[in-house]
Amino acid sequence: MSVDVLQAKIRKLKNPSMVGLDPTPEVVPEHLFNEAYAQYGPTLRGIAEAYRAYCMGLLDELTDVVPAVKIQSACFEALGYEGVKVMQELLSYAKELDYYVLLDSMRGDVGNIAEIYAKAMFGQIEARGEIFCPYTCDAITVNGYLGSDGIKPFLPYLQDNSQKNIFLLIKTSNKSSRELQDLIAGDRVVHTAMADLAMRWSNGLFGKNGYSEIIAVVGATHPYDLQTLRAKYDRLFFMVPGYGAQGGTAKNVQHAFDIYGHGAIISASRSIIAAWKKDAQSDGRNYRAAARAAAEKMRDDILKFVRVQ
Amino acid sequence: MSVDVLQAKIRKLKNPSMVGLDPTPEVVPEHLFNEAYAQYGPTLRGIAEAYRAYCMGLLDELTDVVPAVKIQSACFEALGYEGVKVMQELLSYAKELDYYVLLDSMRGDVGNIAEIYAKAMFGQIEARGEIFCPYTCDAITVNGYLGSDGIKPFLPYLQDNSQKNIFLLIKTSNKSSRELQDLIAGDRVVHTAMADLAMRWSNGLFGKNGYSEIIAVVGATHPYDLQTLRAKYDRLFFMVPGYGAQGGTAKNVQHAFDIYGHGAIISASRSIIAAWKKDAQSDGRNYRAAARAAAEKMRDDILKFVRVQ
Repeated sequence: MSVDVLQAKIRKLKNPSMVGLDPTPEVVPEHLFNEAYAQYGPTLRGIAEAYRAYCMGLLDELTDVVPAVKIQSACFEALGYEGVKVMQELLSYAKELDYYVLLDSMRGDVGNIAEIYAKAMFGQIEARGEIFCPYTCDAITVNGYLGSDGIKPFLPYLQDNSQKNIFLLIKTSNKSSRELQDLIAGDRVVHTAMADLAMRWSNGLFGKNGYSEIIAVVGATHPYDLQTLRAKYDRLFFMVPGYGAQGGTAKNVQHAFDIYGHGAIISASRSIIAAWKKDAQSDGRNYRAAARAAAEKMRDDILKFVRVQ
Repeated sequence: MSVDVLQAKIRKLKNPSMVGLDPTPEVVPEHLFNEAYAQYGPTLRGIAEAYRAYCMGLLDELTDVVPAVKIQSACFEALGYEGVKVMQELLSYAKELDYYVLLDSMRGDVGNIAEIYAKAMFGQIEARGEIFCPYTCDAITVNGYLGSDGIKPFLPYLQDNSQKNIFLLIKTSNKSSRELQDLIAGDRVVHTAMADLAMRWSNGLFGKNGYSEIIAVVGATHPYDLQTLRAKYDRLFFMVPGYGAQGGTAKNVQHAFDIYGHGAIISASRSIIAAWKKDAQSDGRNYRAAARAAAEKMRDDILKFVRVQ
């Protein structure tokens, strides 16, 4: 009933939004690089430590504002194992702070490889009786282009005893998503075929609020699709990326919610974490306060259109 | 002209096949775990070191048999950063041994995240003028469900000065690939729509043999599709997974090649790297010799149907 846990966290903070931690050299303030390089030199370790300080600052700042965070694995993988090490520690730290934690790694693989991946992300690795959980998260993003074989290995972890979710790409927020996802296939388009698969895989996986543990990723930048999909798939919880920097607005995303203001969470990354850059005078030392103000504004903007009961 | 380099390596060894290194607790022989655990304890590091020894043994053994290797990132990521560290070192080691090296990570993301990922895999990370290349590979696998926005960031690296390839999932080898990839969309199916996109993205990216630097992944388990796609997309080089353990045969995969015996490479993992397990008496100490024999047999079986000129 992880989807219920997510909904409960949203209701507790009265904020149906999620912040994406996507650190890059452009958004991390200079002083954090200076401090990290002073200790570790201008190395991959140094960059990773600057990312760690930056993300921990954001996580500390936003606990009472946002209920959920998304950690972008590509930003950390880009630094090799030293980035991955920091990412693992940030996942644990976010969980300790009681966030709902989504690891955004956009993988799609099949058969025994999907099993290995599911076990690493959601299960345990065993060595002579010793148990290890390298990644601490509530959910990961997955790509369903490969069909059931790529998704089924994750399903056992969506049961009550594991309490995990997968976020399945249905209709992504980027402009060229139409190239494949909007192709007409009989009486459906490809992305509704994917949503139909999500419903098929959801058998036995509905939480107490009636939503599936398989969460549908539907971009904020396609309000018409959002509306159509909401009407058609009333048992899929939506995660809506593309808010803010990518062009999605509070007015657009209101259609993701059900009549009780439930069933959706809106995700923003750059517009929150790099909010300090909007002030051309800022050297980034105020990045935490700027992120808090932006997250509060996003929440308030959404709540103008959606009443979270 | 990385696709030409791949073709040249295939011709040099007269072997159009690729071995997938997918280490798992089931396929790595016991004595390698014993040795690693003796030094590092039963830890994630211990498992990673056993994987390292196993993969290095296979890489050492097969240099004169197979021209290319595929390293499965999920197997290493499953161990957290200690697995990723070993994976990075194996990528470099495979390059030193002059293999064509494919990193199989099946990612698909968009916009600035795809850029970050492309830069990490194919480019350089910079810190105060210091340059780092965490991953040493010739190519990675990518998932095109998100459309052009997810692929375009990779294209600059496919030019002559970078010499990289991407392997784009077209029609995967698993049974349920039909659920989405075979949906009929107008006069095409979804996977031919993906192949059409591959051709569109290939503009200006054809090597001297006439094949695109965007390599098409088409499963060995669908011989009819393989034949149809070969006839229709004569400028796409095919990478054909699913040989051996998944059921693809030499007879099936012959259709992936052009009339000169070029334009394709067949990939096998488990049937080669776990060949020692076919002998119920083996304790795995012969895993290298067993892998060599299996790789040679696979080569010879394919060459019964295909003449590599």
